[in-house]
Amino acid sequence: MSDRPRIYLYDTTLRDGAQTQGVDFTAADKAAIARELDALGIDYIEGGWPGANPTDDAFFADPPRFKRARLTAFGMTRRPGRSAGNDPGLNALFNATDGVPGAGVCLVGKTWDFHVDVALNIPRGENLDLIRDSVAETAARGREPLFDAEHFFDGYKANPDYALACVRAAYEGGARWVVLCDTNGGSLPHEVEAIVAAVARIIPGDRLGIHCHNDTENAVANSLAAVRAGARMIQGTLNGLGERCGNANLISLIPTLSLKMGYETGVDGEGMRRLVHVSRLLDDRLNRAPNRHAAYVGESAFAHKGGLHVSAVEKDPTSYEHVPPEAVGNRRHVVVSDQAGRSNVLARLREVGISIEPGDPRVGALVEAVKRREFEGYAYDGAEASFELLARRTLGTLPDYFRLISFRVLDERRWNAQGQLVTLSEATAKLEVPGVADALMTVAEGNGPVNALDTALRKALIPAYPHLDGMRLVDYKVRILTPQDGTKAVTRVMIETRMPDGAPWVTVGVSANVIDASFNALFDSITYCLYRAGATVPTA
Amino acid sequence: MSDRPRIYLYDTTLRDGAQTQGVDFTAADKAAIARELDALGIDYIEGGWPGANPTDDAFFADPPRFKRARLTAFGMTRRPGRSAGNDPGLNALFNATDGVPGAGVCLVGKTWDFHVDVALNIPRGENLDLIRDSVAETAARGREPLFDAEHFFDGYKANPDYALACVRAAYEGGARWVVLCDTNGGSLPHEVEAIVAAVARIIPGDRLGIHCHNDTENAVANSLAAVRAGARMIQGTLNGLGERCGNANLISLIPTLSLKMGYETGVDGEGMRRLVHVSRLLDDRLNRAPNRHAAYVGESAFAHKGGLHVSAVEKDPTSYEHVPPEAVGNRRHVVVSDQAGRSNVLARLREVGISIEPGDPRVGALVEAVKRREFEGYAYDGAEASFELLARRTLGTLPDYFRLISFRVLDERRWNAQGQLVTLSEATAKLEVPGVADALMTVAEGNGPVNALDTALRKALIPAYPHLDGMRLVDYKVRILTPQDGTKAVTRVMIETRMPDGAPWVTVGVSANVIDASFNALFDSITYCLYRAGATVPTA
Repeated sequence: MSDRPRIYLYDTTLRDGAQTQGVDFTAADKAAIARELDALGIDYIEGGWPGANPTDDAFFADPPRFKRARLTAFGMTRRPGRSAGNDPGLNALFNATDGVPGAGVCLVGKTWDFHVDVALNIPRGENLDLIRDSVAETAARGREPLFDAEHFFDGYKANPDYALACVRAAYEGGARWVVLCDTNGGSLPHEVEAIVAAVARIIPGDRLGIHCHNDTENAVANSLAAVRAGARMIQGTLNGLGERCGNANLISLIPTLSLKMGYETGVDGEGMRRLVHVSRLLDDRLNRAPNRHAAYVGESAFAHKGGLHVSAVEKDPTSYEHVPPEAVGNRRHVVVSDQAGRSNVLARLREVGISIEPGDPRVGALVEAVKRREFEGYAYDGAEASFELLARRTLGTLPDYFRLISFRVLDERRWNAQGQLVTLSEATAKLEVPGVADALMTVAEGNGPVNALDTALRKALIPAYPHLDGMRLVDYKVRILTPQDGTKAVTRVMIETRMPDGAPWVTVGVSANVIDASFNALFDSITYCLYRAGATVPTA
Repeated sequence: MSDRPRIYLYDTTLRDGAQTQGVDFTAADKAAIARELDALGIDYIEGGWPGANPTDDAFFADPPRFKRARLTAFGMTRRPGRSAGNDPGLNALFNATDGVPGAGVCLVGKTWDFHVDVALNIPRGENLDLIRDSVAETAARGREPLFDAEHFFDGYKANPDYALACVRAAYEGGARWVVLCDTNGGSLPHEVEAIVAAVARIIPGDRLGIHCHNDTENAVANSLAAVRAGARMIQGTLNGLGERCGNANLISLIPTLSLKMGYETGVDGEGMRRLVHVSRLLDDRLNRAPNRHAAYVGESAFAHKGGLHVSAVEKDPTSYEHVPPEAVGNRRHVVVSDQAGRSNVLARLREVGISIEPGDPRVGALVEAVKRREFEGYAYDGAEASFELLARRTLGTLPDYFRLISFRVLDERRWNAQGQLVTLSEATAKLEVPGVADALMTVAEGNGPVNALDTALRKALIPAYPHLDGMRLVDYKVRILTPQDGTKAVTRVMIETRMPDGAPWVTVGVSANVIDASFNALFDSITYCLYRAGATVPTA
């Protein structure tokens, strides 16, 4: 262990992040993200609000098991007029975390006198009882109690004595962490620093947390200001996801705390090198384009433009880069430079396990092929399988398992004779399989054109390649791209496929036509499956 | 005039912003953006670097005339071994600003000893002469001189005496503003505040500026920290455009300075109400989707979710919103989601201009309809047009403009007689348009099935509804949803459509079949267009 002061990280991507407009996690999304957070080294993972919606209930009904992180359920302090032991909301939290080792319960309560008067409409003293009782009951039930002090900064500005009385009640009730929330997101760093310092005079810093929103673009700075004033826990989200303008971005905070401010977090050097991956994973789950300008992890975060500057960077990166890109899993990106393309491609080849001499002339051909494809709209960052196939094709190490002669897909919607609305997708495919047939024709139906086409292709191929049996398309994403010249939009399709027992692989296809783009991605997906299974072409 | 301290705003969107990866302004773009900046009330508008590229030369050959702003040209201090009067770079700047009343010239120079030694490779004392001479020559030529102190913060951390000597040379040379640049973007707010305070002991604050980058997501906070330490000018860009992770975002800084920190800027209340417009204008010019989570100006910046919370917001907005949305030209936005109840739906109805008594039984029917649809996979919080249509349909105030009898879409890929790969999408549609035809049939091709279907539908409808002419599909997103029961995946399609001159609208469609889901979204999109245009059904 180091002797650097320890900052605890509390992720609320799955709860506050789920409030983001346009975000709609499934329980499976939540479980996958939670496992990544645990692997990253996050201390607390807030899974959701049990009782608030079916997704959160489903998540807590079968929560992932964590190696290191503490699973936390979010909820409210007890209602007025009930004992904490009989409060249905609190009991829902205790039930949801039953049997989860070391589970935490984070309770939000009011600390702004105005909200107590108007929203709760109870005497201010009674609100203190609500807080103290609820936290104490949580501790009594064997859960680690945390208290989220809602609207704390606005409350403190309006009535510091009352706001302090509220957090003191939580502290006295036994809260492990009292978390000061800038709920409306309007506070500025100098205010946060001064107010947290005032609170730290009555609650020790190692019991104090901070929860900021980005409404003035200061959520990260506000979190750092609180840490400087003594707080030792930060609540935030991946990529700053969250309601309105988002929450404090843990992806930015983690390297700043560790690399620049001398703090220790649960994220070690290895975890830090996963930051780019974790950030992209969340975007993938949300079907969002990654922000290429994101601090630390954006594709452009370490981009350098051509010329003199670039050679200076290569001579002495530390004088042009505020941190080493590889420390956060990113890479230097030299814009408009063959050399950079080449070293990137070599690095990616090593990543997929292809060893080749740097001087091999086929590397240049591959660099050209990647550039041409990227110009057309292909993106290989999230589609490693397609990159590997492009590389093996260019290097001449990939067999031609089959060739498409043609396909046709028909989608129909009409009212049938019984007066019901019916939808039908039917695909025909004509393929050449070397050594088997020159023109295999198959037809299949599906629930949608891509499913029909996939089924028709595999119907034709499985007799020759039983390896494809069980292959299943698990995700399908479409995005319209408008290339730089702006004349003609193209469609990019990404397909995620898996075998029943293996890791999924992602392929990409681009075309002006979404079905054609889907075929291109399907073609790669099938080819990759065959290559990985070690299939051989049944030619004479 | 107020007696609040005045902060000067210096926009570098057209120069540092133009360095952004993927950004490629034309001279016309630059002129249009510059005029908006002037109308907004920005004090200094940096037009570019004359002599560096043809676009910047074209801009300065015919610069827009400003009502209030000072046009500034950017360049470098003189080269070693030349007098300032004979330096070709400096003379290009003077020529470019010749005849422009009150023009400024902003010169960048080195202040980090390491860069002087390694990049310039001249004695450190000579660099001081470069700075002093260049600034003095600029003043002598009647331009307002500004000095951008490159890598100042890294330089100060390495060798404070030398960094200070550099900015003192600029000040003594007559620089109106000495601007401290965090060129690599790695400094943190507490460092910036301390270092600016140190500089302010030798250069008065009303001659000091700050220039920050967002590499740690602190560019806004760093700029505010500098102001708190005495600096009185901020350099930044619209929407935080800029190399790597971007520059300090003036759009966020302006309302924070004025509404929260008691400073005056050149942007008055009327200018501030143009912030949303100016921010979107830049995105339009760049053909980028606006960031809906942007501070102050994002579409979601004043979005509210959740039942109880929404009724409280309506009672007293100031206790839930850090500034009034209309102060920055934005508006409150009540989100419809599955966490929403009756009060959300009522608020959302008011927002789209539907007035209804809260007790009306149709409200209950609508809440049920929204819940049922959301269970099926619909999501209305990004698809307001579909929500409005669902509401009007449930309330019985939406005409049936047309009815689909059937459609059929054919996609084909094959090798043609010339040995070329061809792709074709063809759609037939059969519609009933009341008062026109019981079974209108049309057929159309398209670059993809959705485009073909859209074209066939509109071909059938435009004779009866010329309102649809010019309607254009601008975005198309697909997501596969796996509902809780996990048995059958459904596809959700979101379509964004716009008329040539209006705001876009977003609709949503869900089905197990992607084409069918697309049709559902298209149907809403066409219906919404007709409703907004006030179309009437041509029935007898």
